[in-house]
Amino acid sequence: MTGIVSNDGEKRLVLVSGRAHPELASDVAEHLGIEMVPTTAYDFANGEIYTRFGESVRGSDAFVLQSHARPINQWIMEQLLMVDALKRASAKTITVVAPFYGYARQDKKHRGREPISARLLADLFKTAGADRLMSVDLHTAQIQGFFDGPVDHLWAMPTLIDYVRTRVDTSNVTVVSPDAGRIRVAEQWAAKLGGGPLAFVHKTRDIRTANKSVANRVVGEVEGRSCVLVDDLIDTGGTIAGAVRVVLEAGAKDVIVAATHGVLSPPAAERLQESGAREVIVTDTLPIEEENRFDKLTVLSIAPLIARAIREVFDDGSVTSLFDGNA
Amino acid sequence: MTGIVSNDGEKRLVLVSGRAHPELASDVAEHLGIEMVPTTAYDFANGEIYTRFGESVRGSDAFVLQSHARPINQWIMEQLLMVDALKRASAKTITVVAPFYGYARQDKKHRGREPISARLLADLFKTAGADRLMSVDLHTAQIQGFFDGPVDHLWAMPTLIDYVRTRVDTSNVTVVSPDAGRIRVAEQWAAKLGGGPLAFVHKTRDIRTANKSVANRVVGEVEGRSCVLVDDLIDTGGTIAGAVRVVLEAGAKDVIVAATHGVLSPPAAERLQESGAREVIVTDTLPIEEENRFDKLTVLSIAPLIARAIREVFDDGSVTSLFDGNA
Amino acid sequence: MTGIVSNDGEKRLVLVSGRAHPELASDVAEHLGIEMVPTTAYDFANGEIYTRFGESVRGSDAFVLQSHARPINQWIMEQLLMVDALKRASAKTITVVAPFYGYARQDKKHRGREPISARLLADLFKTAGADRLMSVDLHTAQIQGFFDGPVDHLWAMPTLIDYVRTRVDTSNVTVVSPDAGRIRVAEQWAAKLGGGPLAFVHKTRDIRTANKSVANRVVGEVEGRSCVLVDDLIDTGGTIAGAVRVVLEAGAKDVIVAATHGVLSPPAAERLQESGAREVIVTDTLPIEEENRFDKLTVLSIAPLIARAIREVFDDGSVTSLFDGNA
Amino acid sequence: MTGIVSNDGEKRLVLVSGRAHPELASDVAEHLGIEMVPTTAYDFANGEIYTRFGESVRGSDAFVLQSHARPINQWIMEQLLMVDALKRASAKTITVVAPFYGYARQDKKHRGREPISARLLADLFKTAGADRLMSVDLHTAQIQGFFDGPVDHLWAMPTLIDYVRTRVDTSNVTVVSPDAGRIRVAEQWAAKLGGGPLAFVHKTRDIRTANKSVANRVVGEVEGRSCVLVDDLIDTGGTIAGAVRVVLEAGAKDVIVAATHGVLSPPAAERLQESGAREVIVTDTLPIEEENRFDKLTVLSIAPLIARAIREVFDDGSVTSLFDGNA
Amino acid sequence: MTGIVSNDGEKRLVLVSGRAHPELASDVAEHLGIEMVPTTAYDFANGEIYTRFGESVRGSDAFVLQSHARPINQWIMEQLLMVDALKRASAKTITVVAPFYGYARQDKKHRGREPISARLLADLFKTAGADRLMSVDLHTAQIQGFFDGPVDHLWAMPTLIDYVRTRVDTSNVTVVSPDAGRIRVAEQWAAKLGGGPLAFVHKTRDIRTANKSVANRVVGEVEGRSCVLVDDLIDTGGTIAGAVRVVLEAGAKDVIVAATHGVLSPPAAERLQESGAREVIVTDTLPIEEENRFDKLTVLSIAPLIARAIREVFDDGSVTSLFDGNA
Amino acid sequence: MTGIVSNDGEKRLVLVSGRAHPELASDVAEHLGIEMVPTTAYDFANGEIYTRFGESVRGSDAFVLQSHARPINQWIMEQLLMVDALKRASAKTITVVAPFYGYARQDKKHRGREPISARLLADLFKTAGADRLMSVDLHTAQIQGFFDGPVDHLWAMPTLIDYVRTRVDTSNVTVVSPDAGRIRVAEQWAAKLGGGPLAFVHKTRDIRTANKSVANRVVGEVEGRSCVLVDDLIDTGGTIAGAVRVVLEAGAKDVIVAATHGVLSPPAAERLQESGAREVIVTDTLPIEEENRFDKLTVLSIAPLIARAIREVFDDGSVTSLFDGNA
Repeated sequence: MTGIVSNDGEKRLVLVSGRAHPELASDVAEHLGIEMVPTTAYDFANGEIYTRFGESVRGSDAFVLQSHARPINQWIMEQLLMVDALKRASAKTITVVAPFYGYARQDKKHRGREPISARLLADLFKTAGADRLMSVDLHTAQIQGFFDGPVDHLWAMPTLIDYVRTRVDTSNVTVVSPDAGRIRVAEQWAAKLGGGPLAFVHKTRDIRTANKSVANRVVGEVEGRSCVLVDDLIDTGGTIAGAVRVVLEAGAKDVIVAATHGVLSPPAAERLQESGAREVIVTDTLPIEEENRFDKLTVLSIAPLIARAIREVFDDGSVTSLFDGNA
Repeated sequence: MTGIVSNDGEKRLVLVSGRAHPELASDVAEHLGIEMVPTTAYDFANGEIYTRFGESVRGSDAFVLQSHARPINQWIMEQLLMVDALKRASAKTITVVAPFYGYARQDKKHRGREPISARLLADLFKTAGADRLMSVDLHTAQIQGFFDGPVDHLWAMPTLIDYVRTRVDTSNVTVVSPDAGRIRVAEQWAAKLGGGPLAFVHKTRDIRTANKSVANRVVGEVEGRSCVLVDDLIDTGGTIAGAVRVVLEAGAKDVIVAATHGVLSPPAAERLQESGAREVIVTDTLPIEEENRFDKLTVLSIAPLIARAIREVFDDGSVTSLFDGNA
Repeated sequence: MTGIVSNDGEKRLVLVSGRAHPELASDVAEHLGIEMVPTTAYDFANGEIYTRFGESVRGSDAFVLQSHARPINQWIMEQLLMVDALKRASAKTITVVAPFYGYARQDKKHRGREPISARLLADLFKTAGADRLMSVDLHTAQIQGFFDGPVDHLWAMPTLIDYVRTRVDTSNVTVVSPDAGRIRVAEQWAAKLGGGPLAFVHKTRDIRTANKSVANRVVGEVEGRSCVLVDDLIDTGGTIAGAVRVVLEAGAKDVIVAATHGVLSPPAAERLQESGAREVIVTDTLPIEEENRFDKLTVLSIAPLIARAIREVFDDGSVTSLFDGNA
Repeated sequence: MTGIVSNDGEKRLVLVSGRAHPELASDVAEHLGIEMVPTTAYDFANGEIYTRFGESVRGSDAFVLQSHARPINQWIMEQLLMVDALKRASAKTITVVAPFYGYARQDKKHRGREPISARLLADLFKTAGADRLMSVDLHTAQIQGFFDGPVDHLWAMPTLIDYVRTRVDTSNVTVVSPDAGRIRVAEQWAAKLGGGPLAFVHKTRDIRTANKSVANRVVGEVEGRSCVLVDDLIDTGGTIAGAVRVVLEAGAKDVIVAATHGVLSPPAAERLQESGAREVIVTDTLPIEEENRFDKLTVLSIAPLIARAIREVFDDGSVTSLFDGNA
Repeated sequence: MTGIVSNDGEKRLVLVSGRAHPELASDVAEHLGIEMVPTTAYDFANGEIYTRFGESVRGSDAFVLQSHARPINQWIMEQLLMVDALKRASAKTITVVAPFYGYARQDKKHRGREPISARLLADLFKTAGADRLMSVDLHTAQIQGFFDGPVDHLWAMPTLIDYVRTRVDTSNVTVVSPDAGRIRVAEQWAAKLGGGPLAFVHKTRDIRTANKSVANRVVGEVEGRSCVLVDDLIDTGGTIAGAVRVVLEAGAKDVIVAATHGVLSPPAAERLQESGAREVIVTDTLPIEEENRFDKLTVLSIAPLIARAIREVFDDGSVTSLFDGNA
Repeated sequence: MTGIVSNDGEKRLVLVSGRAHPELASDVAEHLGIEMVPTTAYDFANGEIYTRFGESVRGSDAFVLQSHARPINQWIMEQLLMVDALKRASAKTITVVAPFYGYARQDKKHRGREPISARLLADLFKTAGADRLMSVDLHTAQIQGFFDGPVDHLWAMPTLIDYVRTRVDTSNVTVVSPDAGRIRVAEQWAAKLGGGPLAFVHKTRDIRTANKSVANRVVGEVEGRSCVLVDDLIDTGGTIAGAVRVVLEAGAKDVIVAATHGVLSPPAAERLQESGAREVIVTDTLPIEEENRFDKLTVLSIAPLIARAIREVFDDGSVTSLFDGNA
């Protein structure tokens, strides 16, 4: 055959990271047993971002890690620029790794004339050159369908549940959803924790007391039980802290809060600390600033999961298998 | 200025329909006060569909109505072919009107290696040439984000609620969701019906009775109350009929079922008739075959809503305004 | 170099099949010496298709076999869904194998305001995620140009001719086209069978007899000769059976019918059986139902050809070479 | 309503032309009753083309006329550049008018590893910014399917037939195809000329005379008849001139040649002049150079047809109607 | 004709604005004589932006004004979200108006493995739904080619020059470029100001003094002349202030600085104030914060130019004509 | 794992060439140590190009070399057709190698209603199927941003400078730009040649002599110095020859002209020969016809650079490294 035939069949995994959450990136690299490709990134005086890779990424399978922390628009733009740079530098495949995927709560038009920001974000990454998306616990699973290509959707629930099991008596647990829209997730938790009862907090008119104004009520059984209040994220902590109080008022023995993403916008730390919850558990998909590391907060490491998923993708293995066929 | 300058500024609304639900199409046409463009459509011996429009559609704003009834793949393909024919015949804009949007329940990967069929469908319509999508009560609102363009998402809830209000004493109503995943919709119903209590049916181990096997339980207050069991669609009716029974067993005074889409796959009619529900209410987004028109079934007409929405689109008015800013 | 460098260079061929023609799929797998990836596929009550692959296909070169048999729209949609699932499950390349490609006869606008369905189909597969198309004897070769990517166009003619040579005296053969539009194919047959004469059937006014109405006539020499009537497909058999009769009336010694695709929509079997043809030869690009397996029908296996082509594609060999440079 | 509301609803038809066939452009403009937009176009020293429009085309419906004459690649590139300039100058719609569409004969892969040039061309125009394509008698109708958008396919046949009827006794006419591949067109001519017989020229081994080498033969009745030899184009005239001779040798009374496109590459004029044909009829979809205007050549004007089609497109009328529903 | 034919032919211009530079938006609105569409825009606690339009924009020609000021990534993302919202709300056309276009200085790869950020930005706007781009004095004119669609490129030079003419004796002016790369612009200024001499500042080794280190030198005649130092933008002011000093050292009579975009990142104001320049002139394409409004700064209004260009676009007039054929 | 697992991991580099510059192609092949894939290419009588590859290219990394020489539109079209053929023949990646990239000077709209031809060209190659672009010294570096994918931009400057260093005393050199727009390149040359002074030729009114008409002047120091006049290309040679004369008149010791691309449209050879330049140096990115090989012309070979770059791309090495991090 005419031409050069080369038989090395080498392929190369490359990990690069933006500036949003360097600790997570270096943890993931450590779990993968690699160095990251050295990357220059800084802001020009007017806020424009400059970025450049320090060595060739040609032909590589590149993973660009950036969690969409505050200032969120800056870190999203930085990740877009890095994807563009990888594309133009001839990376063979580009995977956007966004442990926390920004704008996920704007996944539909709540009212007319709004954007669907989560879809827009997926399209922006596609346009920049992303072939694949990896994220942890998307706010709604439908967001997988916003990206035109493979999405590796990782679940932090096994990580969280393994820990929670060490903290509560599972025979006396009620899983509680902080609002009506996320009971499905609570249902999955309940099943994993042994099939116990389910409850949710609902804003309503109390039907038994005439003329009483609207208030939060617990629907379901919580009296005398250890409650695990679950959500995908904690932002300002208002809903969660309110739910903790209502559940305790309804006679719960104690309350543990578990969520994947610790957004923790002020005054979340204060609110949670004072909410009456026994413990608040999150993973480090987002950086936890020092001022947010309050007493009752437990932060679990998400790096092992992300590293294993990256390795499966690179080895053409199965990400599904990481979750016993549930992903 | 060089060239021909014409001042007529005419624009033309054209309505065409596939063969899935001709009654609805002709109702919509009547509410719009127009004739449909005559369309030839038949199957070749091997099942390939032939379709052709009987008059010019050049420059028109075309609306292609097809509800994704059984045999669903045939009617989806017919609508795709009609969109292609409109595109090649120089329609100015093409709106796919799918009162019931097929494959909406496959809106995410429940497990690895599944398609996301609802996204695929949106892409197929886009590829064929659709500029806009109009549908009623999508299974999840996120599906709006699957289409790369405007989606006019109509709500049947006002139509259903207006009717339900005439059938129950709203001061004694509990709105019930048949499962944990759709409580948000029930919550919206409850708010519209006056802010009464909410309940849902939950498959669980009964915590009060040791060793009892898994069963459906009602979470929330239903005893002595008129219950309205709400869902977006009724397919084989198994979940709904089961929920009716559980709610009645829990002491409800009576139960009305309300859903937008009457898919009514066998044995839905039989199940619902025998479920103990006082009345089952759907709209005619899908054709209701004669054998499915059981005693307790009430079918409300969706045509006025669709016709008004088409007219707003054509007149560059506001579809949002049809729902007081809620669409 | 930074990162993980892996040297295995493995690549993996995966074959999956829809439900349209499982025998062909398993024949192809056998010729390739592999197992198919186990695939779940069934219809929901309302006709929506569910499909899922039973093991990881990540990084594989996937071939999705589905012949567009009756009910054709269902099988096309199933194949589209399987392509979407492969794309989202990270298959490296996806080849749509459609031994019989549906809607191929609608490859142009015969009249204004029709779709060009064959082009639409190609676009739908592209949108779903197909990288390449493989088919056998497309109705017109131009359909290759409808797909934006490589098309491996296989020829059944060598398979058919090898068999026909064992059934006729090639020194006394006339190849006959059933109508004016497909003489080019007959011409290729004639060349392969030794360069004998050519004829075609033409609907015309008989010029020698005044006032005679329109009728089919044979143009070309058939008297006393063994005729091979060739076409790409037999659908309802009307044209073919009519052509057999006209050729026999014109004095042909006998007639063999040879076609690649046995669509055989009713009443094709009956018509062909009674047409006077000595033998009717097709391949099994489409499933031949039991009721269509009439006496004079011979079905040749297309699996060896498809298996060899798949292997060439996977090995970066030459599909062209399978046809001595004619493909 | 907020904003400026303007009620003029004006739209503007603009015609621009490349340098390939200025006479046709000015004839079309005259039939439309308009001036063309003045356009600068010239070649730089190294052959790069410069083009610019002399007045604003913003918001217009622009038609870019260029026939793909020799030097064909230059004129195709010029048309692409003009489309790009129109797009960037904000024309509202852009229609490529290519009375003769180049590369139409490369509409499939005749052998492996060839381009499908006719599809490529369609994609190039789309990429440059074309919304619609207009052409006359595409080599194969499938080329319509190569463009992703509306194609207005005009037929010169009525123009040619109207003239031919004045030149032959239609009761004694045989329509002849110069080869097996284009009999379908001959069949359409025959139907329009009154349903007379059909013939074609076929390269074959003479079966009645042993050992005779391959030669052209007429299949069908031509003896004593006026023959009309029809094709879509005449390039070097070899096939046509050969066919004229064979038909005359087979006893035809006389032969007229009719084709839409007079490509007339040397030595076409000489060959046709000496072929024995009574008359050769083409349209002026291509410029006919002075040296090609031989004695027996008749050139019919295509401008009225193109002008009418442009007008129908602009007025949102029906191009189909120009051909009694046959386009 | 079937369907509704409406003759109103109305079209509607809509102006919306992000939060980056509200004064400019309201000036533009005033020059257009319209109200802006009321728009909600705020940041969620974690920095995600929410935006929504207060009234219908269906069918409108929408212009989205946002200047890419600090914090630049936030304002770019806000504009992208507004474009997405307009697309999904059925605006007919969407024009991105970015008086200062961000990331324009990263218009090529200065070194390997960098992004081409200015191209990425153009693609992001296209993906979000933009049909057209309007900007003032792009850093390089090639950026027009980064957007796949019409770009209306406005020139502030006439505005600046009209003012400068009132401030200098044009018979004794030298136009100076602050570096070698932007002399072309200086050349255009010189031509407009009467064809006077040109100079530029060049970092070089002084050739006349051995061993002298690298320093800035003026190339060209400035002694005794009024110098106008021109650039497209002033960011931190370092280059400009340095150039002022060098020019004054070289004997210039005085120096005026003129630039379109006053980015004015700290310590620009201080540097310029102390540079020795007589006056610094910019337009208000960007907001000038109070602390940047130093003594010698003159800010010209760009709103009249933008308003006129928007009006020409809406009226299908000519933006080119605003610049005597120079745009 | 199910399926065929193959472990060869072979990859194959394939080089094909159009007809524009066969010497360069064969030089590159020689430097790579390979044979080119035999390719058929010729023109049909009407100028349409036919091309076909003589052996399989399936799965290969294909490089298509064509320099955009005269007749430029023909060679561009030929390269587009070859890319299409490679795509349809299943090449794995396709790199367009255009040592001289045509239409690069039309990289922006100089005036309204012009095309941006260089962007159009990039889009045409993308559409045809190109994954990557390789070129030498693009007219402006921004053209890299016109292609949506990796661009390997090679620099001939090191090649030219290595040679120039052998021809001049670098301690007495001034680098001169022939006009104001390309001083940046001259600046880079000056830095590489040791940091000497810079000059440029400027068309201006002489300020010291009243009423003198416009003329070219040298800005900068050239008296008594060896001048190197640099540009990216020499087309008709008018500007360059004029600059040589002006520089000599201004007292330069002697002048060498160095440019990457020798377009050399007539009367360039004559002009340059008579310009007074001591030597004119170009590379062979373009074929130098015999009649252009005048006395003072030196042609350097670009093949080694292109061959090394192709090899780096194939081996996933670093093209940047070829230029010490400057590419």
